[in-house]
Amino acid sequence: MGDEYASMKRRAARWAVEQVDDGMVVGLGTGSTTAFAIDELGKRVDAGLAIEGIPTSHASRDRAIEAGITMTSLDEVTTVDVAIDGADQVCDTVLLKGGGGAHTRERVIDTSADRFIVVVDERKVSTKLDGHVALEVLPEAIPSVLSGIDTLGGKSTIRTSTTTDGPAYTERGNLLVDADFGVIERPETLANELWATPGVLDHGLFIGVADVIAIGKADGVELLE
Amino acid sequence: MGDEYASMKRRAARWAVEQVDDGMVVGLGTGSTTAFAIDELGKRVDAGLAIEGIPTSHASRDRAIEAGITMTSLDEVTTVDVAIDGADQVCDTVLLKGGGGAHTRERVIDTSADRFIVVVDERKVSTKLDGHVALEVLPEAIPSVLSGIDTLGGKSTIRTSTTTDGPAYTERGNLLVDADFGVIERPETLANELWATPGVLDHGLFIGVADVIAIGKADGVELLE
Repeated sequence: MGDEYASMKRRAARWAVEQVDDGMVVGLGTGSTTAFAIDELGKRVDAGLAIEGIPTSHASRDRAIEAGITMTSLDEVTTVDVAIDGADQVCDTVLLKGGGGAHTRERVIDTSADRFIVVVDERKVSTKLDGHVALEVLPEAIPSVLSGIDTLGGKSTIRTSTTTDGPAYTERGNLLVDADFGVIERPETLANELWATPGVLDHGLFIGVADVIAIGKADGVELLE
Repeated sequence: MGDEYASMKRRAARWAVEQVDDGMVVGLGTGSTTAFAIDELGKRVDAGLAIEGIPTSHASRDRAIEAGITMTSLDEVTTVDVAIDGADQVCDTVLLKGGGGAHTRERVIDTSADRFIVVVDERKVSTKLDGHVALEVLPEAIPSVLSGIDTLGGKSTIRTSTTTDGPAYTERGNLLVDADFGVIERPETLANELWATPGVLDHGLFIGVADVIAIGKADGVELLE
């Protein structure tokens, strides 16, 4: 990642963290831009901000603990005030998520929040929705999911691990399939078809759930609300 | 369970097992009626039938092994020829499943089969779809799922275990929520709404997936195709 994009991510992350007030419960997403937000939030906690964080993954929990943020969980709170999370691609009101494999839990926490702030750098914003759709899949359902994706006109790749032999596992022991549908013209329809595919537990299409999209640019932050 | 209903279940199970031919791969459902089918299948295996079974749960695997059926798994076969599985309620082409908590895996295996035979006794057939919808839920998503069900007009109960303290867990460490929507007028719409509820991994509405429904009655078997 070039410094240029790191700066854009940091700008978006900083703006999101400015929206957090004392006493809030904050959902903490997964990914490189959110990691900057977690670090920024840690600095505000050092300076006296009292908040509790709910992580969307082991990675975000570890980062948050390192940053000095007190952790809680969804079943211990009555409200999540704000969630800050990244996206792999943004097109209008549709987000593609799941590059980090944490999208099933991210969906729960992001959509539970009163305000869901998406943080991305400008490269993530596209006029065409054409990224891969990440699917969390029951391991024994791989054959039926691959054939289901084929029927829907997509090309599937089972995500492989770079640190262990074989496939990449999610936190709940499921597998990840990345499906390429070319340009996705009707995301709502595809979302329903994917949920209806036996063995697909969740997918990375997040439609109309973001309250604000903060786009880090070379010269500032653009907000889509 | 009265003997009367056991006989009906056995009749439906026996008819389903007659549809199995030498060399077939057979999906084995979960529940009391399917258990009869597994036992019947075991008798045919004893008599020389060569088949392989794919279980939908630990319970059906154990029963099948006891019955002497050779087991395989979805990723070792190219085709599932027939699946035999029960249902908690049948109304037209809609099945309600999940009383046994195995519906996520049942959906994969039942819908992978070239022919899906449902076996039920006549009590399960209803002119109104009004049974509870079983949901498999990410544990940390319980609060958001309960509030989502409430928004959809349903009443939720977290299924409790009768053998361990606390809730009943599925084979993948998730929880079960039974949702009562009264009479379900539009099952397709509800199915999509439930899949779209964050934290719901799957639900017990199986729509238009059965090839034959074999209904055991006092005097025989009625077939809906």
